[in-house]
Amino acid sequence: MQTIFPPPLRNRPNTGSENLLDELDLNKTTGRRTAPRLTSNFIAMIIVTRPDATEEQIEHIVDRIRSWGLKTEVSRGEMRVVIGVIGPEDKIREKPLGAFPGVESVTPVLKPYKLVAYEFRRTNSHIQIGNVTVGAKEVVVMAGPCSVESEDQITIIAKAVRKSGAKILRGGAFKPRTSPYSFQGLGKIGLQFLAEARRATGMPIITEVMDTKDLELVCEYADCLQIGARNMQNFSLLREVGRTNLPVMLKRGMSATVKDLLMSAEYILSEGNFNVLLCERGIRTFENMTRNTLDLNAVPVLKAETHLPVVVDPTHGIGVREFVPAMALAAVAAGADSIMIEVHNAPEQAKSDGEQALLPTDFEDLVTRVRSVAIAVGREL
Amino acid sequence: MQTIFPPPLRNRPNTGSENLLDELDLNKTTGRRTAPRLTSNFIAMIIVTRPDATEEQIEHIVDRIRSWGLKTEVSRGEMRVVIGVIGPEDKIREKPLGAFPGVESVTPVLKPYKLVAYEFRRTNSHIQIGNVTVGAKEVVVMAGPCSVESEDQITIIAKAVRKSGAKILRGGAFKPRTSPYSFQGLGKIGLQFLAEARRATGMPIITEVMDTKDLELVCEYADCLQIGARNMQNFSLLREVGRTNLPVMLKRGMSATVKDLLMSAEYILSEGNFNVLLCERGIRTFENMTRNTLDLNAVPVLKAETHLPVVVDPTHGIGVREFVPAMALAAVAAGADSIMIEVHNAPEQAKSDGEQALLPTDFEDLVTRVRSVAIAVGREL
Amino acid sequence: MQTIFPPPLRNRPNTGSENLLDELDLNKTTGRRTAPRLTSNFIAMIIVTRPDATEEQIEHIVDRIRSWGLKTEVSRGEMRVVIGVIGPEDKIREKPLGAFPGVESVTPVLKPYKLVAYEFRRTNSHIQIGNVTVGAKEVVVMAGPCSVESEDQITIIAKAVRKSGAKILRGGAFKPRTSPYSFQGLGKIGLQFLAEARRATGMPIITEVMDTKDLELVCEYADCLQIGARNMQNFSLLREVGRTNLPVMLKRGMSATVKDLLMSAEYILSEGNFNVLLCERGIRTFENMTRNTLDLNAVPVLKAETHLPVVVDPTHGIGVREFVPAMALAAVAAGADSIMIEVHNAPEQAKSDGEQALLPTDFEDLVTRVRSVAIAVGREL
Amino acid sequence: MQTIFPPPLRNRPNTGSENLLDELDLNKTTGRRTAPRLTSNFIAMIIVTRPDATEEQIEHIVDRIRSWGLKTEVSRGEMRVVIGVIGPEDKIREKPLGAFPGVESVTPVLKPYKLVAYEFRRTNSHIQIGNVTVGAKEVVVMAGPCSVESEDQITIIAKAVRKSGAKILRGGAFKPRTSPYSFQGLGKIGLQFLAEARRATGMPIITEVMDTKDLELVCEYADCLQIGARNMQNFSLLREVGRTNLPVMLKRGMSATVKDLLMSAEYILSEGNFNVLLCERGIRTFENMTRNTLDLNAVPVLKAETHLPVVVDPTHGIGVREFVPAMALAAVAAGADSIMIEVHNAPEQAKSDGEQALLPTDFEDLVTRVRSVAIAVGREL
Repeated sequence: MQTIFPPPLRNRPNTGSENLLDELDLNKTTGRRTAPRLTSNFIAMIIVTRPDATEEQIEHIVDRIRSWGLKTEVSRGEMRVVIGVIGPEDKIREKPLGAFPGVESVTPVLKPYKLVAYEFRRTNSHIQIGNVTVGAKEVVVMAGPCSVESEDQITIIAKAVRKSGAKILRGGAFKPRTSPYSFQGLGKIGLQFLAEARRATGMPIITEVMDTKDLELVCEYADCLQIGARNMQNFSLLREVGRTNLPVMLKRGMSATVKDLLMSAEYILSEGNFNVLLCERGIRTFENMTRNTLDLNAVPVLKAETHLPVVVDPTHGIGVREFVPAMALAAVAAGADSIMIEVHNAPEQAKSDGEQALLPTDFEDLVTRVRSVAIAVGREL
Repeated sequence: MQTIFPPPLRNRPNTGSENLLDELDLNKTTGRRTAPRLTSNFIAMIIVTRPDATEEQIEHIVDRIRSWGLKTEVSRGEMRVVIGVIGPEDKIREKPLGAFPGVESVTPVLKPYKLVAYEFRRTNSHIQIGNVTVGAKEVVVMAGPCSVESEDQITIIAKAVRKSGAKILRGGAFKPRTSPYSFQGLGKIGLQFLAEARRATGMPIITEVMDTKDLELVCEYADCLQIGARNMQNFSLLREVGRTNLPVMLKRGMSATVKDLLMSAEYILSEGNFNVLLCERGIRTFENMTRNTLDLNAVPVLKAETHLPVVVDPTHGIGVREFVPAMALAAVAAGADSIMIEVHNAPEQAKSDGEQALLPTDFEDLVTRVRSVAIAVGREL
Repeated sequence: MQTIFPPPLRNRPNTGSENLLDELDLNKTTGRRTAPRLTSNFIAMIIVTRPDATEEQIEHIVDRIRSWGLKTEVSRGEMRVVIGVIGPEDKIREKPLGAFPGVESVTPVLKPYKLVAYEFRRTNSHIQIGNVTVGAKEVVVMAGPCSVESEDQITIIAKAVRKSGAKILRGGAFKPRTSPYSFQGLGKIGLQFLAEARRATGMPIITEVMDTKDLELVCEYADCLQIGARNMQNFSLLREVGRTNLPVMLKRGMSATVKDLLMSAEYILSEGNFNVLLCERGIRTFENMTRNTLDLNAVPVLKAETHLPVVVDPTHGIGVREFVPAMALAAVAAGADSIMIEVHNAPEQAKSDGEQALLPTDFEDLVTRVRSVAIAVGREL
Repeated sequence: MQTIFPPPLRNRPNTGSENLLDELDLNKTTGRRTAPRLTSNFIAMIIVTRPDATEEQIEHIVDRIRSWGLKTEVSRGEMRVVIGVIGPEDKIREKPLGAFPGVESVTPVLKPYKLVAYEFRRTNSHIQIGNVTVGAKEVVVMAGPCSVESEDQITIIAKAVRKSGAKILRGGAFKPRTSPYSFQGLGKIGLQFLAEARRATGMPIITEVMDTKDLELVCEYADCLQIGARNMQNFSLLREVGRTNLPVMLKRGMSATVKDLLMSAEYILSEGNFNVLLCERGIRTFENMTRNTLDLNAVPVLKAETHLPVVVDPTHGIGVREFVPAMALAAVAAGADSIMIEVHNAPEQAKSDGEQALLPTDFEDLVTRVRSVAIAVGREL
């Protein structure tokens, strides 16, 4: 099955000016853009076209629906095209969507999440991060240190993980820390060091943004934005990254249900940015032999519920170095599209989370083993 | 026991220019104000003065310590004055704090939270919200609707709850909602409605701020800022409210430990704002007969660990109208300094959380019962 | 409101030969008494009589229903009598229950628990433990050590807690301990020491039974059996205690939902023993500043869902001595019918749980404070 | 590495008369066998022999230690023999264990669990269930229905799963059910049906025992006893199965920590039965899209902490049929020694848990995929 993103979403400039809901001209009581535009009678419909539907018919459907002020998302499979439609219930209900030539069926999305629901696209989304695709057959390995600490540190680690098979470089410049007295990240300089490591290795970089104030700065450097677990329900931040055109990896909150995670992702997509990855990173339970409880149950559940790719972070998830490899292998076996591994060349000196980072040599060994499991479950690496 | 806040913290303008850590001139690698100023070897010391220490001696101690670039917080009890000192370990360790005349003892704060620790002040903080004091003998009732919906709605409810004994008016203008398609609050207009209700009733208002971008606006209207459970670890927001001079009520995250809550409060105090209230509002457990599990265990634990007042929100905590009164009574019996109750004049029409709001008449009845329990445990209302 | 238990349940000998379901003559495939007698189409119906129904009419209804092989439970209020009926759906459905003279209404119990449901009796059950009634206006204090350690220890503590206002003596002779290497209780000798303390003080005793093998022995000594949290779903044990005529206090499991607790109680009642008390004793959460998280939310929920009395054990629930009083007060404010407090005359030498036991003097002080709160919420002590 | 169990434990008759602690002649206050024999100063020591230690030297060490009234457990690796010693601290401390010829080192087990600790044997235990070995290189698949329902049902399913690669047949005759009105299992007849299925297929059977009263009966039929999650801390039952010579699979309780699970296993081993398997079957969290949260983190943690084999039950763990395969694959990738899968030939008619059972054809497909993953991680199937 071939998956084609609609060009407007892919190539649109980073102005944030286009979003799925903007043109709906809902009642804007407050004059603020994030104010109550949407009401609970907002619905989504799925139009599936007939196998013999022509390109003209499809174009006609999309054009007409857009002319009514509704938004569409087109997903192309081998046999059929799926057209997702979203808008206010009263506007959609009055339209004869099933009457278009070429339409096979029209069904509503009954779940509370609409745009992220698997049925909204009926095919898995492939997200492009730099030159790397996540969500396709290849299991993508993201790796790097918890925090960027120096240009040398990040570049040395980047070269090492790239050599071992990592495709995307991770590293935090803005670090959310429980204590105000802990290392908070290098900020802008950290982003510059990351950019230097990208130049040296060709790897795209993923890095966290913690606040709407920092978003513009982080967007200048990042290939993929990370929203941390603590910000999973920072709805202002979700909306703002939804207005960029960068891929966004959204981490599950420590006590967020899978549904909560999907609803938070819906915030991003509802602003027009469909390039979202969901990351399981451990939930909080009563267990205390591990830092968190990596919830791999979320992987098959998410793969069934959404078209978005699923990333697993076993490093934070279990939080103990010696147990990370087992969970990385399990994540891939469970169906993860990507795993994110913390690697540090001198964990004992790391400014954060040193006790869970792998050494480059251990990482190399792990990638070899992950590759075997990936192949065993019909994937590549 | 008399409690006096140091004037600079109380009366300083809302410029954010003064904070406890700023003058320490730590290495600022990045040029960003929230960047790594602090390292983990930041410590706090408690100086307790002798009963016969003179005012001159105390002043001398404070002046000298400040002259070394360290920050102090003075708390006055009946017999003794406690001077909390915070700064980098190397700076503090080299100073002969015990050698000052009038000093009885010098002890370090060993807990990971320093400024919020009870021992940092050895007396309970009394926080002033408008004309109301929270943390003293009186149990303060905060009440109002979940969301501000109209000027009429908020004013009618404000008058009703004030008549029944509420002292502070709550109401959300910016609402964090799980779904992007739910009512998100009226924004600025909601704040204006709140101000109108304050004018009509004389009650100070508490309202949520969700994002650093909105902070300036909310500060124009609020008497007390609320940080919601989902933002408990939005560290950028915590820092920013720490730079205002408004009281801040920090709600515990859904799966935050008591220690996490205290560490988040530490972020606010570390920026110079000691006017913080902590709010228990229910944690997430496996139970599904209630919306959340109100954790009253947190009340005695917090009262032992910190000098900050403790508020309990039984409405969100248990989330079912008929069970709210029992939990409100229990909260006061457990030692809460304040309770926050949602009241709506037409819950069935409420735009959010109608199923848990009390009717004004039920609220009136509840306050009477709460008063009995408050008196039974040696408090007032 | 007067509550009368049907005599057969009260006075029947401890033979286990009569139980609510036995006479129904269901298919007994296996010949074992605990084998599949019941199927999911077992239902309960509630007959409410008219205010003017005569005693003869009520007797007639009960007699006829029993003659059909169905079981009844009669609860008498001031104005109306409620007759609960339980049996196989096919047997009940064919009977014209609404046609009896004197019947006002007939409604099914729709919840998965039938006999424990509040509507099955429409009045609160008063459970008699020795000379003490639990579930009426008086808040009953149970107190004593975690484990019986010696005759002196238990007698000294018993006298002290009785003097302070406790009505029922607790003490474990069979102790469920996480480690096989911890003190496991004195067994039979411990029971004898308890009996001696009862003789010396007149207080009825509650003590744990851990295994069906020990049941007969424990029944010889106990006035009330305790089923511990770890055995809440030991269904064999539940059935067996359901066949005794002793009151049973069933403790909620560490991760049991309120529904689970009620379903486990249903096992006991379904064997004919309606003398059941439910005890909240703390659930397991992520919090680690307390031993468990006492879930007071369960109190109002249980009071709404069931006619059985609710006991709260703040000692195990929060597990830290200094925090026990706050939770005891809160439990009573929340509506608990009874609280259970661990008291030890030498906690530092206790063979189990010394860190959470109160000293007798602290206990005396606590009872005084609990009495104030009890009165404040309209109860007695 | 070769692993040899000491013959006395393997071949001893099912009298329960020999157990590791019995001969220690501790103070038995109560005359009851399960009464306080052990105190917390019970310790375990590990003697590692030199590579050149002779068989005579080893025999001499073991003989002398036993002559002192202490118990030993001998584990043989390729190069070294490990002799675990357990007994009261005062007895062990006075003995010069390091002075024996052939001894390389003597170290104490510092963990609260002694006999189950990995270091007590320094090699993985291989548990024999009928003709099948669990804990060695082969990943063992256990399969069968939740409940035995009829002779036909169990035999048909047994043949199907055996053909697909299952080695051990599961099936419940005694079923722990939340509701007393649910199907409770066929009891003895169910055991007979299981025995018939064993005769027809040659597969050893594992089945649950719920109560000490039923133990003798179940032992007559079972090749491996199962202790269910709800009975994980039914300490009486643990002791009793510890006195049999049958293998025991102990399931983790719904909110048991890994440490709790190990402590419960310690109860069984402390009675002399070292043939214990530990089973992860899902914990209870706030998530509600799955029945439980299968905690695969427990797999690497257990493999590091204990020498006992680890079984994973993805069926109960996630509780939704379509998600079972992903979790089964992940379990093996994480390092499980065995997986237990529910299979039913007509899930829609199953008397319990039909919604999570696989069809035989789906099971066949799953085994093929599990085999690929097993091989990818260096195991067999």
